[in-house]
Amino acid sequence: MKILVTNDDGIYSSGIYELWNVAKEFGDVTVVAPSTQKSAVGHGITIDKPLYIKQIDRGNGFKGNSISGTPADCVKIGIKKLTKSIPNLVLSGINIGSNLGNNIIYSGTVAAAVEGAVSGIPSIAFSLDSFSPNSFATSKAVIYKVLSLLLDNKPPTGTILNVNIPNCKPEDLKGYRVTSQGKQYFDDNFDERIDPRGRKYYWMTGKINDDDEDLDCDGFAVKNNYVSITPINFDMTNISYINELKTIFENEEN
Amino acid sequence: MKILVTNDDGIYSSGIYELWNVAKEFGDVTVVAPSTQKSAVGHGITIDKPLYIKQIDRGNGFKGNSISGTPADCVKIGIKKLTKSIPNLVLSGINIGSNLGNNIIYSGTVAAAVEGAVSGIPSIAFSLDSFSPNSFATSKAVIYKVLSLLLDNKPPTGTILNVNIPNCKPEDLKGYRVTSQGKQYFDDNFDERIDPRGRKYYWMTGKINDDDEDLDCDGFAVKNNYVSITPINFDMTNISYINELKTIFENEEN
Repeated sequence: MKILVTNDDGIYSSGIYELWNVAKEFGDVTVVAPSTQKSAVGHGITIDKPLYIKQIDRGNGFKGNSISGTPADCVKIGIKKLTKSIPNLVLSGINIGSNLGNNIIYSGTVAAAVEGAVSGIPSIAFSLDSFSPNSFATSKAVIYKVLSLLLDNKPPTGTILNVNIPNCKPEDLKGYRVTSQGKQYFDDNFDERIDPRGRKYYWMTGKINDDDEDLDCDGFAVKNNYVSITPINFDMTNISYINELKTIFENEEN
Repeated sequence: MKILVTNDDGIYSSGIYELWNVAKEFGDVTVVAPSTQKSAVGHGITIDKPLYIKQIDRGNGFKGNSISGTPADCVKIGIKKLTKSIPNLVLSGINIGSNLGNNIIYSGTVAAAVEGAVSGIPSIAFSLDSFSPNSFATSKAVIYKVLSLLLDNKPPTGTILNVNIPNCKPEDLKGYRVTSQGKQYFDDNFDERIDPRGRKYYWMTGKINDDDEDLDCDGFAVKNNYVSITPINFDMTNISYINELKTIFENEEN
């Protein structure tokens, strides 16, 4: 099995090293990751400048390609230029920090997995619910189990698994929940400051809110020490509103 | 009515000027748009550097705020810092080039409208199916009509309208179709070159493919001179796969 491993925290992140460590037990791994931190770039791609590729060797067997672009760029150029044939699996992560609820729309980690799915490749995003993890033991056990179970149970084409892992010890993990994307959101604001040249500037600030109280929601499951597995896709159509919209726009015309 | 107008082509784009021109007939418009071209940035937001705001006056009454960030940043800072109260409507566009099928995941135009919807504001993205339009006559008539019809028919909270306008004369417009997100995709590749310092670099290239042949698909509708209106949302859950995934992950555990 050929596996493309990527992330959005950059090729020197601790998370991608741990993901690579598990992934290589399942097949031939090609690492293609951003040269620098690319959190919150969403599904951006680079069309206004060219990309550079650099070979990286972090030691302990970890070799890879750094790309001067976004996570989605990494998957695109990885498939087209860096793997000898189309990969069988795209893995993205381990992201340092969860990707839950509304906030997945900003995530480079999730976007990379979506990009794999756009090319018809089974793709999984892994995120750990901590900004300062002191152990990847739980994450590695979870990734091993998810990959083992999915070898014989491929998701339908175009469906990505968004896996979020609680920041707890392996013995405190309560189990796995298949969830829906919940309503977690980032309640942002802007902190106003003055630069040395007297100009106002603004830092985005804010905090994560999650009012969900159901283990079928991604955020609540993780908060309760369950691994959350959300099947997502990139067809954004709101089917349930189509007929009503037709009465507004089509009746008048046809 | 308070209307926030934004785009991804930047505040000096011809498209945002035309959108402003129609929008101001419906309410008080605040323009908040990127200072430069931000196509294909997807739903990126700026968290690793601060944002600057600059007041812009393009003449003919068009005044606005340029932001040193992404389209999603513009909507966030617009709502929090530049409108006196939460806007009643977010309009994004007119994008120079369509946003159809799979390709909407890369679109800054669509992301800006999604960002409005995340805040519970009715939001519409307008895109014109041409990279070199010589007239906005059709677009302006379409925007006028869409806004008029929607004044009394607000989409459900969280649903964005993705409106794509064919590049034809007003008299050649066949009508309006409420569509689903189709399968149009960008068949990308990478053009390899050598820079003056002898290093390889890669330009993303490729072409748009659209095999849909149904007027209920966004791309085919536009190709046939219909305005395509797709209701989209940002809940990416693939509900249809949840039960099967539960048999894989939950039965083993519970």
